[in-house]
Amino acid sequence: MPVRIGIDGGGTSTRSLIYDDEEGILAEAGGPACALSGGLERALQSIGQTLEQALTKAAEHGRPVPARPGAIDAVCLGISGAASLPAGQPLSEGVSRFLGERGYPVSPERILVVSDIEIALAGALGGAPGVVLIVGTGAVAYGRSPGNRTFRADGWGWLLGDAGSGYDIGRAALRAAFAIQDGRREDKTSSGLVAAVTAHFQVSALSQLVPMVYEGRIKVSDIAALSPVVAELAAAGDPVCLAILDEAAEALAQSVLAVVSRLYSGEGEGERPTGPIPVSYQGGVIRHSPVLRELVVRKIEAKGERLGVRCRVKPPAYEPVVGALLLAGASPEKL
Amino acid sequence: MPVRIGIDGGGTSTRSLIYDDEEGILAEAGGPACALSGGLERALQSIGQTLEQALTKAAEHGRPVPARPGAIDAVCLGISGAASLPAGQPLSEGVSRFLGERGYPVSPERILVVSDIEIALAGALGGAPGVVLIVGTGAVAYGRSPGNRTFRADGWGWLLGDAGSGYDIGRAALRAAFAIQDGRREDKTSSGLVAAVTAHFQVSALSQLVPMVYEGRIKVSDIAALSPVVAELAAAGDPVCLAILDEAAEALAQSVLAVVSRLYSGEGEGERPTGPIPVSYQGGVIRHSPVLRELVVRKIEAKGERLGVRCRVKPPAYEPVVGALLLAGASPEKL
Repeated sequence: MPVRIGIDGGGTSTRSLIYDDEEGILAEAGGPACALSGGLERALQSIGQTLEQALTKAAEHGRPVPARPGAIDAVCLGISGAASLPAGQPLSEGVSRFLGERGYPVSPERILVVSDIEIALAGALGGAPGVVLIVGTGAVAYGRSPGNRTFRADGWGWLLGDAGSGYDIGRAALRAAFAIQDGRREDKTSSGLVAAVTAHFQVSALSQLVPMVYEGRIKVSDIAALSPVVAELAAAGDPVCLAILDEAAEALAQSVLAVVSRLYSGEGEGERPTGPIPVSYQGGVIRHSPVLRELVVRKIEAKGERLGVRCRVKPPAYEPVVGALLLAGASPEKL
Repeated sequence: MPVRIGIDGGGTSTRSLIYDDEEGILAEAGGPACALSGGLERALQSIGQTLEQALTKAAEHGRPVPARPGAIDAVCLGISGAASLPAGQPLSEGVSRFLGERGYPVSPERILVVSDIEIALAGALGGAPGVVLIVGTGAVAYGRSPGNRTFRADGWGWLLGDAGSGYDIGRAALRAAFAIQDGRREDKTSSGLVAAVTAHFQVSALSQLVPMVYEGRIKVSDIAALSPVVAELAAAGDPVCLAILDEAAEALAQSVLAVVSRLYSGEGEGERPTGPIPVSYQGGVIRHSPVLRELVVRKIEAKGERLGVRCRVKPPAYEPVVGALLLAGASPEKL
């Protein structure tokens, strides 16, 4: 019963899954954020905490991981920011040390550290090649071709990019609310946005937000937290919020098509897909807004057609943490 | 020879003008920024410095201001942020004390403190009612009706508004450069923007900007400083930069029309203009980009027509500091 571990080291939470080649998933545990920006030690602490909990739970469920070499076959850790930081080796060594100290010796070579977008892709498409669109506070499209080439579009952060992200949607909503109040919009359609924004931030007038924003009391994540408000109003037919989501969807579809164009533009014959190109998505903002999702799907398919490629958008097969398990060698049949 | 003083207390520089009812402008002096956000003391220091210099220059030019009560008839200080801060009285008293200590007694009642947008309007339209559009790092439209009602649209700062500002133009340029590099733009038109942005920030690749931005080494004013680069490329026909300026112009025209609608929608019969509504502009971003200016003018006139009002956009008559002089009682004939 070789054991595999998948870890999703995200910017807002960390999750660990323990999987057995015969039994499937044995246990799962979640914990605090794991962004590398908070330092390697902090990240390792979060990872260790969720690993320890998951191992304890597996034992409590009567399926303890044996404390001997080879019991844990492989670990895959997907971590936010791993793409741009030379953190792979220290993280592999840190996780190896942590597991070793608790009686589960695993060599660092069996501990794969990849970017969070890599596990998101693997989870969304069950390990198959294709493209994933990730829309949370930030936004990025990432793909892997059948010939194993990869390409990332956007993911440049709240100021330089992340076009169509939760932050972008929240920012557009804030700006639209002020524009509506000023009378700066040509469409005189009434919108519940001003009331929804003031209610969300628990203020009685928009102008109270001004010092809150410029004194730094409203942060990037607080602005992204407005996106469910926009999604809800859009679902109820609010034209201003529908326009905000339409613009976000446009940008998100562009990111996906940039990846599709790069990976499937037929540089090698083997890269030319016979069937449609598999596309999926991850992230709370797109998963929780059917309106945004439908707009994105429609735009991806339409833009693809104009480029002469067929894209087929499917709901994600698995979450990113399961993608990590797949990259650690788990078999999709047991999930 | 009653003397009047106009002061423009701006966020990037301070200017003082000394004027004599018979001779016209006697002297002028400039100094460092005067934003109230830096504290009242700092603002008063900048103001004092430019006042002292201007008074010295006037004396050097053989036209000293007599050190006796009544020699200085009135002072008008337009200061950034004065609209939202209760700083009027302490500023009046501070300037009065400063002048008194140097032998020029002026009672605080003769020292008018107004917002920077008020002196910009007075300067742009030579003291007449109408609307001014101010486009610098930020953007705001402000107007005064013949019946003395006022209205401000936008000016909500870089995150919540300032639609069409230098910051907005620079931010759009940064985002467009990353999108072009990713292949996220549908128009495959080549653009000199990526090269211009990297040259402007003296980096060899766009990706080097990522840590600079998120570690806070690139600030709001640095982003606004990209707008002349965009203006130059647009003037040379670059389609991406033209599109950025077009979107900025659209937002700026909306702000102007919001003010026009509010002030001239015929609430009182006396407010209904017989001739066209006078509109002008101030600020480095619009003054230094003929392309932006032409787009804004065209859009204001077209949008006005759709609303059934005639707007006539004229170049600014005077700078804001001269607007302060006019509000201090100077006669336009002597300027």
